[in-house]
Amino acid sequence: MNTPNQEHGLQLRSRVSSQGELELSLARVAIPEPAPDEVVIRVEASPINPSDLGLLLGPADLSSARAGGTPESPVVTATIPQPTLKALASRLDKSLPVGNEGAGVVIKAGANVRELLGKTVAALGGGMYSQFRVLKAAHCLLLSADATPADGASCFVNPLTALGMVETMRREGHKALVHTAAASNLGQMLNKICLKDGIGLVNIVRSQEQVALLRDLGAVHVYDSTSSTFTEELTQALVETGATLAFDATGGGRLAGQILSCMEAAANRTATTYSPYGSPIHKQVYVYGKLDLRPIELAGNFGMAWGVGGWLLIPFLEKIGPQAAQKLRERVAAELKTTFASHYVGELSLAEALQLDRISVYSTRSTGKKYLINPNKGLR
Amino acid sequence: MNTPNQEHGLQLRSRVSSQGELELSLARVAIPEPAPDEVVIRVEASPINPSDLGLLLGPADLSSARAGGTPESPVVTATIPQPTLKALASRLDKSLPVGNEGAGVVIKAGANVRELLGKTVAALGGGMYSQFRVLKAAHCLLLSADATPADGASCFVNPLTALGMVETMRREGHKALVHTAAASNLGQMLNKICLKDGIGLVNIVRSQEQVALLRDLGAVHVYDSTSSTFTEELTQALVETGATLAFDATGGGRLAGQILSCMEAAANRTATTYSPYGSPIHKQVYVYGKLDLRPIELAGNFGMAWGVGGWLLIPFLEKIGPQAAQKLRERVAAELKTTFASHYVGELSLAEALQLDRISVYSTRSTGKKYLINPNKGLR
Repeated sequence: MNTPNQEHGLQLRSRVSSQGELELSLARVAIPEPAPDEVVIRVEASPINPSDLGLLLGPADLSSARAGGTPESPVVTATIPQPTLKALASRLDKSLPVGNEGAGVVIKAGANVRELLGKTVAALGGGMYSQFRVLKAAHCLLLSADATPADGASCFVNPLTALGMVETMRREGHKALVHTAAASNLGQMLNKICLKDGIGLVNIVRSQEQVALLRDLGAVHVYDSTSSTFTEELTQALVETGATLAFDATGGGRLAGQILSCMEAAANRTATTYSPYGSPIHKQVYVYGKLDLRPIELAGNFGMAWGVGGWLLIPFLEKIGPQAAQKLRERVAAELKTTFASHYVGELSLAEALQLDRISVYSTRSTGKKYLINPNKGLR
Repeated sequence: MNTPNQEHGLQLRSRVSSQGELELSLARVAIPEPAPDEVVIRVEASPINPSDLGLLLGPADLSSARAGGTPESPVVTATIPQPTLKALASRLDKSLPVGNEGAGVVIKAGANVRELLGKTVAALGGGMYSQFRVLKAAHCLLLSADATPADGASCFVNPLTALGMVETMRREGHKALVHTAAASNLGQMLNKICLKDGIGLVNIVRSQEQVALLRDLGAVHVYDSTSSTFTEELTQALVETGATLAFDATGGGRLAGQILSCMEAAANRTATTYSPYGSPIHKQVYVYGKLDLRPIELAGNFGMAWGVGGWLLIPFLEKIGPQAAQKLRERVAAELKTTFASHYVGELSLAEALQLDRISVYSTRSTGKKYLINPNKGLR
C-alpha cells in the first residue's frame, strides 16, 4: 500500500487571470515530509460539493469553456464575465488548490503520530483534489476499521451543515425547520436527523420525482414549489409544525420571500389582535447556497418581525466553540454509515474531473448528480 | 383652561370593511372619568408619522378616495385592493382609533396623581388623534414648564427610534451607521446625535436638495442615490467610516442590496486572502420603513456574511429592558428642544386631516411634508 519511491503527485489547480480567464490544470507537486505532528494522506475520495464550485469554477461562463493540454495533463479555460472580475481581486493570478474535504490512507506519519500510519482518515483540509496532502494529525478524523475512504469522503461539509441547522434552530428558539432543495444529499441527511430526533421538518423541492424520493425516505411534509397549490400547502404545514426558521439553498428568486409570507400567514391564523406591523413572531430564513443565480426578491407581505441572512458552516462552528463542534463531529463518526451516508453517481480521476462533459454535469449542482473525485484513480 | 362642562370629544377612526372599503370618520366619544392612577389629556399636538399611516390608511388605493359627510363631520372612503385584504383579517369591520404619540394638557387627574392637573405631558399611548385621551399617569412623560404640546408631540417615535439605531449599533458590535431617507425628521435627529456623540454616519438621500439640507446641518457624508457616482461615493464613505450596519426606511427596490454590495466592496479593499464566500465581516441592513412599495431586491454580490431584517421600536425597547429604555427616554427629555426638535409644515384639525387634498400630501411620506394634528383646533 505504501509508495516509498514516489516523490511527486498531481494536484488540481484553479487560476483566474487579471485578464478574466479561468484556467483549470493539474500541477505536479512534491510530496512533503511530515512534521512530527503531521501526516501525509494518499487521498482516495473527495466529493465535488456545491461549496467547492465557487473556488473551482468561479463565476466563469461555462458556455465558453475550451479543452486543451493532453489527456494526462488536461487544461480547461473559460471566460470570466468582466462585471464579476472585481469581486475576485484577492485571487487573481494565483494558482489555487481546490477540494474542501476528503478521505484517504496515511502513507507517512511524523514522529509523534506514527500510530496513524496505514489508517484511513478524513479531513476538512482544503486542497483535497490532490494525490497527496499533508495535514496536522489533529485535524484528521480517524475512521472505523471497516470504513473505506469513499465512506468517509463527505464526513464534514454535509453532515456538519445538517447538524448545524438543527443546532441553530435550538439555539435561536425555533421549534421546527423548513428546508429548500430538500432532496439533495444534505436534505436527505437532514430528513434522517429530524426523523430520528423527532423534529418537524417541512421539505421544499422542485419536482414530483423529488416529492416521491423524500416520501420514500419517510418524510412527512414535502411540497413541490412548482405546484399551483404550493403556498396553501406550505402554509398548512407551517401551521402544523410551527416552523419559523428556514434554510434555503436556492438563494435567489422569490422562494425565501414566499416562505416568510407563508410563515406570516400561518402565524396570523391564530392572531386575535391587528397590528399594521404584522405578527410579532420572528420569522427567519438563512441562505446557505446559491442554486438560483437571480437576485433574492422579498415581496414584503410578512410584517416587520423577520430576517434573511447568509449562513456558513465554518463561522457557525467558530461561534458555537470547539466543545460544541466536537460533539457534532462525534455524532457524525458514530452514524457515518447510516444517518450520514452519501451517494454519488460516479468516481472521477483528476484528469476526468477536467473533461468538459463532466464539468457540464457537476456544475449544474443537480440533486443526484454528485461526483466523487479519486485523485489516485489510474495512477497506481 | 379646564373644560368641566364638556362631556364628549371627537376621535378619528379608521375602519376597513370585509367588502374592502376603508372608511375614515370622526366619532363622538364620552370623556371618561380617570381611575385613581390615570389622567385625561386634552391632546393638542400629535404628529402624522409614517408609522401611523399603516393603521390610518391601510393599503387603500388613494386614487379611489371619495369625500363625504359634512364639513364638521367628514367621512372619507377608499377602496382596498382585494389581494391585500387577507392580511387585514384581524382588523376587518372594527372602528379603530389612530395616532401613536402626542402631547397635551392634563384636564382630569385621578386621586393618586392630582399633582399632574394642568401640566403638559407627552405619551406614546395610541389613539392620540382624539380630543381627549385617558392614560395611566405612569405612561406619560412630564414635560418641562417651558415646553408646549407641539414641542413634545414627537417625543417618542422619532427620538427613541434614532437613539435605538445608535444603541443597536453599539450592542451588535458595529462602529458606524448608514441611514437612508436621511433628510427626514428622524434622519436629521440621527445626524445631530451622531455629530454630538462622535459616531460616523453615512447619509443616503434622493436629491441634491436633500444633500444640501443635511450638509447645512453639519453632516459629513451625504450621498444622492440617484447620482451616477453613487456606489463609488458610498463605498469610499464606508471605507472611511467602517460602517457595517444600515437602517433603511425605503424597504423596497435595490437600495438595501446596493448598500450590502458597497459594504462588501469596502471590506475587500483591505482583504489579503480570497474566499469564494466573500469577506467574513458581517454586514447588516435593518429595514424600519416601507417608503418604496416594490419588493426588496438583493443582487447577492456581497458574500455570505450578511443579514437583512425588520426593525421596530417597541420590540427593540422590550428587548433591551425597562432600565435601558428609561435611559433613552431621559435623554430625549433633556434634549427636547435641541437634538430632538421636530419640524412640521402645518397644524391640522381632525376635520382638516380628513380633507382629500391634505391626505394626498401626508400620504406621500415626503421629507419636509410632516403635519401635526391638533385635535382641539377650532373646537374650544
